[in-house]
Amino acid sequence: MKKLLNYAKYIAKMVDDFILNNVLKGKPDHLYSASSHLLKAGGKRLRPTLLILSSRVVGGNEKKAIPAAAAIEILHNFTLIHDDVMDMDDFRRGVPTVHKVWGIPTAIIAGDLLFSKSFEALLKLKELNVDHKSIVKSAEILAHTASTIAEGQAMDMAFEERVDVSEEEYFTMIYKKTAVLFEATTKIGALIGGGSIHEVETLGTYGKYLGLAFQIQDDILGVVGEEKKLGKPVGSDIREGKKTIIVLHALRKATPKEKEKILETLGDRTLSKESIAEIITLLKDLGSIDYAKELALKYANAAKTIIDNLDAKDLEAKEMLIELADYVVKRIK
Amino acid sequence: MKKLLNYAKYIAKMVDDFILNNVLKGKPDHLYSASSHLLKAGGKRLRPTLLILSSRVVGGNEKKAIPAAAAIEILHNFTLIHDDVMDMDDFRRGVPTVHKVWGIPTAIIAGDLLFSKSFEALLKLKELNVDHKSIVKSAEILAHTASTIAEGQAMDMAFEERVDVSEEEYFTMIYKKTAVLFEATTKIGALIGGGSIHEVETLGTYGKYLGLAFQIQDDILGVVGEEKKLGKPVGSDIREGKKTIIVLHALRKATPKEKEKILETLGDRTLSKESIAEIITLLKDLGSIDYAKELALKYANAAKTIIDNLDAKDLEAKEMLIELADYVVKRIK
Repeated sequence: MKKLLNYAKYIAKMVDDFILNNVLKGKPDHLYSASSHLLKAGGKRLRPTLLILSSRVVGGNEKKAIPAAAAIEILHNFTLIHDDVMDMDDFRRGVPTVHKVWGIPTAIIAGDLLFSKSFEALLKLKELNVDHKSIVKSAEILAHTASTIAEGQAMDMAFEERVDVSEEEYFTMIYKKTAVLFEATTKIGALIGGGSIHEVETLGTYGKYLGLAFQIQDDILGVVGEEKKLGKPVGSDIREGKKTIIVLHALRKATPKEKEKILETLGDRTLSKESIAEIITLLKDLGSIDYAKELALKYANAAKTIIDNLDAKDLEAKEMLIELADYVVKRIK
Repeated sequence: MKKLLNYAKYIAKMVDDFILNNVLKGKPDHLYSASSHLLKAGGKRLRPTLLILSSRVVGGNEKKAIPAAAAIEILHNFTLIHDDVMDMDDFRRGVPTVHKVWGIPTAIIAGDLLFSKSFEALLKLKELNVDHKSIVKSAEILAHTASTIAEGQAMDMAFEERVDVSEEEYFTMIYKKTAVLFEATTKIGALIGGGSIHEVETLGTYGKYLGLAFQIQDDILGVVGEEKKLGKPVGSDIREGKKTIIVLHALRKATPKEKEKILETLGDRTLSKESIAEIITLLKDLGSIDYAKELALKYANAAKTIIDNLDAKDLEAKEMLIELADYVVKRIK
């Protein structure tokens, strides 16, 4: 995994430089500070790394994929800022969220700015002589993906009010909210790298499975993660009443009395640390964490199998794509 | 002006059909209802009409420009939804604003969805055999415009807290907040219509002047307009402390005592109808409304002159573009 993590650091530097020097420049200052706040707070740059590896594995060149990698990272940051406003979250990546520092109106505009900047970044592919047809196709994927994320986010919020969410609905929701961006990342990477239609589709499926595993792991870390590593409070999913796969499993396995307990706890924003700890113990006892771990592993393995069978043009990239599938389910932040 | 208004109705029908049948379709239902709420509440479809006329005047075809016209209208609606959240406005186009009906989180996502749908609409130009190069160029203009609008909106909000805004700053702000979208509309129209670089630039300048005149007229209507026609409360600019050109002029012309009065009124959200009426009388007496009217007329005339000198491929379109310049300063809603 060390190779992957070192490579991610190297990509992070290139992509961050590109974003901060070529894309996120402008006035007024407070808007640009707010827009780059989370970006500067850290983050793993998993998606840019994934995009560039997807490009390399079909024979593409690293540098040529940078604008697209930046576009994906910027789009991701846009969704984080608006999500934090909607979920009323106070911390992210160990720092106060954008709306906590600059207020809700500026956080809304900062997100909007990142959205358009994401397209501006992508369209800079033109300057690297990527053909216009591939740029249009990439922009189509990016736009469609952003629409799908909005749908997923709306579902996620609507689920907070419901007690009868099915696993099928959960999977549709996390595909839309999270996995579709991983899918777009791998597809655009393969496209810019000159991959065939088949390679673009194959890498898209890999990205989709990776994204599903990633979100399930996120659900797990939201319950059993370490606050310091995560950079945000543990248990916020419970306080917000999120219908994670862990909660859905627990509601199915619980006795009527336990179920009642879970339901009255979910969505209670005033919940004490003790009550959160109590619920977490219950979720563990019901086997719901293990159930989620198995599912995450299943998707990570499915992703690995796809890459294993890929006729790679770049073996090092292939190796790191496999490591990435391991990483998303082993990560602790 | 009748010809123009009838044509706008005809374009409105085509563009609305395209948007509602080809672009704004999806789940969950409440998100799509929220996203199409303002669109269904009416509106003049000035921007789609402007785009198609800009396309026709350089020899372009009406139908081919529809996806781009839809993209501009959708982008405009996105900005309205987020602006209403940020300004805490309760009414628009005679109906409750999106966040009043569906709440702030859904209004934020509904705006985000429209943003991506705007690009989705634009990229449908591909299906009408518009060349990839022109599509990439149009997408670049759209993305850059959206970034500029975010900057303008941030300036507009920051001005609310300041008492020393200059006229120059005001013009930069309204260019970014409003006129840049008119400029993008005419440029993209001319581009899709196959216009030369010179024609694209010339129509861009026309659009920019038109947009400046439009925003100044908006400032005027915000003070002296009829509430029923406008579909939103008169005086909200004053309640929100907006630094309109009228206010800037008044602050310059007022006696120290009048200035004090204006400054303590601006941004007071609890202001009574009587106090609003009093301030409006003062603004009138200081000649600030007349000053704004002169400026709006100046920009509308500058726009007209540009079109007058244009070697038009479609004389009917040219005639309507001139009517449009008259319309923006004569409109009462």
